Amino acid sequence: MTTDFKPEQLVREGLKKLIPYNPGNYTGLIKLDANENPYDFPAGLMQQVLDTAGPQTFNRYPDAMAEELINELAQWHKVETRQIMVGNGSDELILDLMLAFGAGNRVVIAVPTFSMYGIHATIAGAEIVEAARQDNLELDVDKIISSAEGAGLVVLCSPNNPTGNSSGTDQIVAILENCSCPVVVDQAYVDFGGNDFLNLLAEHRNLIVMRTFSKAYALAGLRIGYLLTHPEIIFYLLKVKQPFNLNGFSQVAALTVLRNRDLFLHRVKKLNEEKIILYNALQKMNGVRVYPSDANFLLFETAIPSMEVYNGLLKKNLLIRNFGDPRLSKYLRVSVGLPDENKYFLQSLQQVIDTLREKKSC
Amino acid sequence: MTTDFKPEQLVREGLKKLIPYNPGNYTGLIKLDANENPYDFPAGLMQQVLDTAGPQTFNRYPDAMAEELINELAQWHKVETRQIMVGNGSDELILDLMLAFGAGNRVVIAVPTFSMYGIHATIAGAEIVEAARQDNLELDVDKIISSAEGAGLVVLCSPNNPTGNSSGTDQIVAILENCSCPVVVDQAYVDFGGNDFLNLLAEHRNLIVMRTFSKAYALAGLRIGYLLTHPEIIFYLLKVKQPFNLNGFSQVAALTVLRNRDLFLHRVKKLNEEKIILYNALQKMNGVRVYPSDANFLLFETAIPSMEVYNGLLKKNLLIRNFGDPRLSKYLRVSVGLPDENKYFLQSLQQVIDTLREKKSC
Repeated sequence: MTTDFKPEQLVREGLKKLIPYNPGNYTGLIKLDANENPYDFPAGLMQQVLDTAGPQTFNRYPDAMAEELINELAQWHKVETRQIMVGNGSDELILDLMLAFGAGNRVVIAVPTFSMYGIHATIAGAEIVEAARQDNLELDVDKIISSAEGAGLVVLCSPNNPTGNSSGTDQIVAILENCSCPVVVDQAYVDFGGNDFLNLLAEHRNLIVMRTFSKAYALAGLRIGYLLTHPEIIFYLLKVKQPFNLNGFSQVAALTVLRNRDLFLHRVKKLNEEKIILYNALQKMNGVRVYPSDANFLLFETAIPSMEVYNGLLKKNLLIRNFGDPRLSKYLRVSVGLPDENKYFLQSLQQVIDTLREKKSC
Repeated sequence: MTTDFKPEQLVREGLKKLIPYNPGNYTGLIKLDANENPYDFPAGLMQQVLDTAGPQTFNRYPDAMAEELINELAQWHKVETRQIMVGNGSDELILDLMLAFGAGNRVVIAVPTFSMYGIHATIAGAEIVEAARQDNLELDVDKIISSAEGAGLVVLCSPNNPTGNSSGTDQIVAILENCSCPVVVDQAYVDFGGNDFLNLLAEHRNLIVMRTFSKAYALAGLRIGYLLTHPEIIFYLLKVKQPFNLNGFSQVAALTVLRNRDLFLHRVKKLNEEKIILYNALQKMNGVRVYPSDANFLLFETAIPSMEVYNGLLKKNLLIRNFGDPRLSKYLRVSVGLPDENKYFLQSLQQVIDTLREKKSC
């Protein structure tokens, strides 16, 4: 028996303190928590993916460079193939960016935002510098630029998760021009609204745009993210990329979705119509403050403490998003669901608020 | 335009020197290079995977903890569920191990072996200490133990890729008992032969056994690896794991294979019979030295320089494995293929050797 084995002594201090992202696994609930595309993936397309894949997609290693997928992405986005890299979800690409440019360096993150940027920065051994957004939730461009002096990476998100607002082109250009490190703009939600910054690639060698198939393109379960940038950045990312990072079935699924993307964009249009209905209803609701959103979710505050509202909804079988981050503790986030789900959410929220108010006034 | 952007200044020295693993993408060749299961994945099981998966496996995020899969793996291997972690191929698990225990530490690797251990160690910022195998390709247990003093991780592979030989239980026990860090034994090929070290888990808290669905279980394309160890090690690995690392379709595919594993073990038996035929034929071949193997591949040397033989086979549409590592430059590795592929390989090898010999004697 090995007696002097103390794994905690081998682990970096930064990791010891890290609380892993734990999304939980909920079944039987109405899921309005993860900003997925709520429409079932079309059965006909599923079968098409399987038939296109064929048996060797299972037993043989996948194409490590996902050439066919990257070719079609390059055609769609009008960039060169050597400007694109795909990942096992954007998560893997964030980690790769941190490993290539963040490790041993400072990484500037505009907060509040998606928590995985900070988690992956810590995993890679980067020092996190938070550049807080302004009270109106806009980027603090000056603070980002001054924090980025000597940093290895800047991470932005537009439309931003969880605030829902987008950044202006002038803001992004100012940051790109005044930072001498790579600047990531995660555009996971851009299909739902806000500025698309791909057109800035031609002029800005330090821009990295991230996109995903997990939101508008209804493939969250198959984990396909990609980034668009310049070959000199890809050169370093390829060094840290896992060789067979994107499995073969997901490569075929992404291609199939790309070739049928009108179908998904039609659903995006319907979800945006639903978002307006949801926004207007929340705006009229007493004791609720809702924020405008370019994404497929809405951020809102309630007069009653958010955790009580969250738990009240959970009792009604509704899962929305609350936040561990103390800066976000007053907020809740709801994904735009199917029309019936949204109606049920609005009804339930009203009931939960009314019930909690009655209790308080007793 | 950003003018002072010099990404190379932001990248660690270790990464700058790293040459990425580039498996290439070959089509239309007989692939005996990647130790895959050469039998097409059964069409009936493919359809079963799709039907079991259902549309929400596509549009919803996967179960981050792969509970159902881990439950069934735990039952099979007779361990607790909290002793197992699954990854996007063993590659991801190797990186996670390096990030948790290797970063900022020394990592001892018994070489020659699978090159990804060293690559991921470099990516994570670990210092690599190589413990060379003995001339007979056996582990140098004393060297491993002395190198591991103060190290963060030891990495072994049994059966070893690319040498094909397995380690003895006494060797592994000696290493486990004399190292105070986690000891990984990658058993990717154990279904084909050699000692299974899972039974050492009960007595050794620092043992980590890695297994995969990529070889015997014919799912290389879907990227499913897993490791078995103790909860105190899993605790740190979960901190560096990507939350949704294993996509939903691969989770269902792995479950389907597990529930039908007799079918795959039957194919393993046939491949092992083919291996013996291949081994015997290579042993009789003039100018060839072949090594015994517990895996689904054979390592061999040729009297004629290996690259000439490799290229000669490539001209005959046959892809086998050569090695960039100078310590392995005299070796070639051939995966056990389908009976006809193996016959064609043997014929072609004989022809290539004869032709090259004739040229040399001219």
